[in-house]
Amino acid sequence: MSGALTSASYLSLEVKRMNANREAVQRLLSAEPVLTGVAAAVDVVPGMTPQTILTSGPPLAWDAYTGGQRRAITWAAVYEGLAADAQEADEALASGYIRLASTQDHSCIGSVAGIYTASMPVFIVTDQVSQTTAFCNLYEGKSPQRLNYGSYNRDVESGLRWLETTLAPVLDACVRDRPIALRPLMARALRLGDELHSRNTAASMLFQRTITRALIDLDHTDLSPHVRDTLSYLDENEYAFLRIGMAASKATVDAAHGIPCSTVVTGMALNCREFGIRVSGLGDKWFRGKHPQLEGRYFEGFTAQDVEWIGGESCVTETVGLGGFAQACAPSLQAYQGGSYATMRANNEAMYKITLAEHPEFKIPAFDFRGTPVGIDICAVLEQQILPVIDGGLAGRDGGQIGAGVLRPNLDCFEGAYDEWQRRYDAPSETTDQGN
Amino acid sequence: MSGALTSASYLSLEVKRMNANREAVQRLLSAEPVLTGVAAAVDVVPGMTPQTILTSGPPLAWDAYTGGQRRAITWAAVYEGLAADAQEADEALASGYIRLASTQDHSCIGSVAGIYTASMPVFIVTDQVSQTTAFCNLYEGKSPQRLNYGSYNRDVESGLRWLETTLAPVLDACVRDRPIALRPLMARALRLGDELHSRNTAASMLFQRTITRALIDLDHTDLSPHVRDTLSYLDENEYAFLRIGMAASKATVDAAHGIPCSTVVTGMALNCREFGIRVSGLGDKWFRGKHPQLEGRYFEGFTAQDVEWIGGESCVTETVGLGGFAQACAPSLQAYQGGSYATMRANNEAMYKITLAEHPEFKIPAFDFRGTPVGIDICAVLEQQILPVIDGGLAGRDGGQIGAGVLRPNLDCFEGAYDEWQRRYDAPSETTDQGN
Repeated sequence: MSGALTSASYLSLEVKRMNANREAVQRLLSAEPVLTGVAAAVDVVPGMTPQTILTSGPPLAWDAYTGGQRRAITWAAVYEGLAADAQEADEALASGYIRLASTQDHSCIGSVAGIYTASMPVFIVTDQVSQTTAFCNLYEGKSPQRLNYGSYNRDVESGLRWLETTLAPVLDACVRDRPIALRPLMARALRLGDELHSRNTAASMLFQRTITRALIDLDHTDLSPHVRDTLSYLDENEYAFLRIGMAASKATVDAAHGIPCSTVVTGMALNCREFGIRVSGLGDKWFRGKHPQLEGRYFEGFTAQDVEWIGGESCVTETVGLGGFAQACAPSLQAYQGGSYATMRANNEAMYKITLAEHPEFKIPAFDFRGTPVGIDICAVLEQQILPVIDGGLAGRDGGQIGAGVLRPNLDCFEGAYDEWQRRYDAPSETTDQGN
Repeated sequence: MSGALTSASYLSLEVKRMNANREAVQRLLSAEPVLTGVAAAVDVVPGMTPQTILTSGPPLAWDAYTGGQRRAITWAAVYEGLAADAQEADEALASGYIRLASTQDHSCIGSVAGIYTASMPVFIVTDQVSQTTAFCNLYEGKSPQRLNYGSYNRDVESGLRWLETTLAPVLDACVRDRPIALRPLMARALRLGDELHSRNTAASMLFQRTITRALIDLDHTDLSPHVRDTLSYLDENEYAFLRIGMAASKATVDAAHGIPCSTVVTGMALNCREFGIRVSGLGDKWFRGKHPQLEGRYFEGFTAQDVEWIGGESCVTETVGLGGFAQACAPSLQAYQGGSYATMRANNEAMYKITLAEHPEFKIPAFDFRGTPVGIDICAVLEQQILPVIDGGLAGRDGGQIGAGVLRPNLDCFEGAYDEWQRRYDAPSETTDQGN
């Protein structure tokens, strides 16, 4: 990518890579995701069956899942009625009666363990430019005990049931006939102090405001008893929008996926064992590496020793120029995940060095309205030795959320992806040590 | 106040001043303003009569009002039915049949020309700690043609009538039985990118969210036809909260007014001829000076040459640690009033040098949650030669809003106030040139 290499084949490949990246970035920048409905996963998610459970991160064999992520999958089977208890669930998963798959292979995107079962409602978001559709399930609420953090009890169960029976029908009724354009809403939330990964306060308010008129209408229908409950949920849960933003980000990044020769990152995800990335020009393969380094703020009573990795794909937001890539929009985030505003600005600023473009609509007021950095290039990461900054929640080894912080992946998965890119696109062998 | 002066009388007076200022600041910091209702000015504003018109700024004789402020007062008389036309209004004002008075002498606070007539609805806000009540009339909407910017036509008239007949009854019904605590709402808005003078986007959304449940209830009453109109108004007008915030600020600053010997500023206001300040220990007298310096961004087609001063008291927000004193909260404000974020931060930072305290609830996330600077001390202004920074809208000489910007008062009114303070509190004559 740099200096000394000037052979014709290298130059030709480099031109090809640049053109591919230009196309990938163009798709990232032009996407117009729209929220069109809320429906049960089995009714809309491609390939979803009554016996399917989806979970976050590069896929693993059932045996390889451990800790909270394994528990979450097991309890999901019980919740869905696919097993009477954890033991039976384990057997059904081992036997293959329950089909375990990776969210991202089904156009879904998972928060933390990212558990989807057939009956769980999902937001449906379609990029109007590419017609790419993606899905995300609904936020369980602010209790630290949530299925997607590996916890399960009667409250967790009834909370999930409430999402199905109350929240989903109301939200679907609100947006079915009045779909919501998410790009302007998200751009506006950035001007109101969100970064749209770990802070979604403004976007959640904007979403609520957008559906207020529909809620008033619904209060005159048979959904009336659920309208006030929905309002209470929206009033209490500043995080509610994250799932919509994740679906929008997934639709956007999937639109940019699959462009031969492109080195743009089109997926980042965690499972209980690894962090992985996908790259536009490298198909659906995940390039896997160690778990990220983390710098966190812990809820009272917890320390770094209590952290457990149980999966997570909300870092899809970082792949489209949000989250850590828009940190400078959200100084209030310090109260949640620690750090100083100077550090947040510096983190955000550094992301311009590993990305290919600045977003035309997602702007950072504190950078005098500079567009957010978008389009992570694995070559730039390796050249600059700067890793993406990811905002995120932290899970505890006994289940539940125990804090929040900033995650930094390691170089390993980027190196792995670049090796594969070289093999696949037949670059001269001299370029193999470019990452140093 | 500094260095050389060590006479016993000076020290004793200085102790007295410090104690008085401590008390004034304590009242500024502890105020708990609550919105309790909306009613016609004549029904709630002390001293308001059917023939009274209130206008912004240190009071002037009718003859002295010029330009847009004079026009606004004249049209207010026509709007209220006190005169058939401008000519008749002028005569009624000259004869004293119409009683013209200063908003702030009636616990009111005026935006730009700040026009109040008897029938105009006002927000009622009471500080629960001191039981001080203040009022502010309602925002006319975002048209640049508004009575408070000196414009009048059929649209302006019908807009004002709509506030009386539609918006006021709905908002009153929303808050009468569910009063709204404003301090937490305003503190939260600062974390969402408002500074609560020229940017009220988040506060307006929070206010709307707070009354959503009441609006849904009202949709089942005879106010139902007005509920959706109210929603449209709130959806469109990001500025709607300013008037509530101004009433809250006025109740707060009035609670700190009238403490003998205090040098804390308890009022800043413009009329068409002057900028004036009030000081806690100096009674209701206004200390008057030249109009502020201004640095603005003009709407298309206008320049600095088109600016006309037509009054304004929204700078009451700056006296309680908001507006320019919380600028660093609101980087998006650049798009409205110009400047860079670095300048905004520097402006805000400088205000700590002329204030006595940091607000315990109004925090600046971008300053790592430092409290906003509160309690402008005229002595500090004179010693530091730093003038308060005021965010504000700009009026045009032909009526209407033509831009927005940052205003800096001159030292003159602070010098005048300090002279008076010395005369009144019998300070040694050597201190008279301390301001240099």
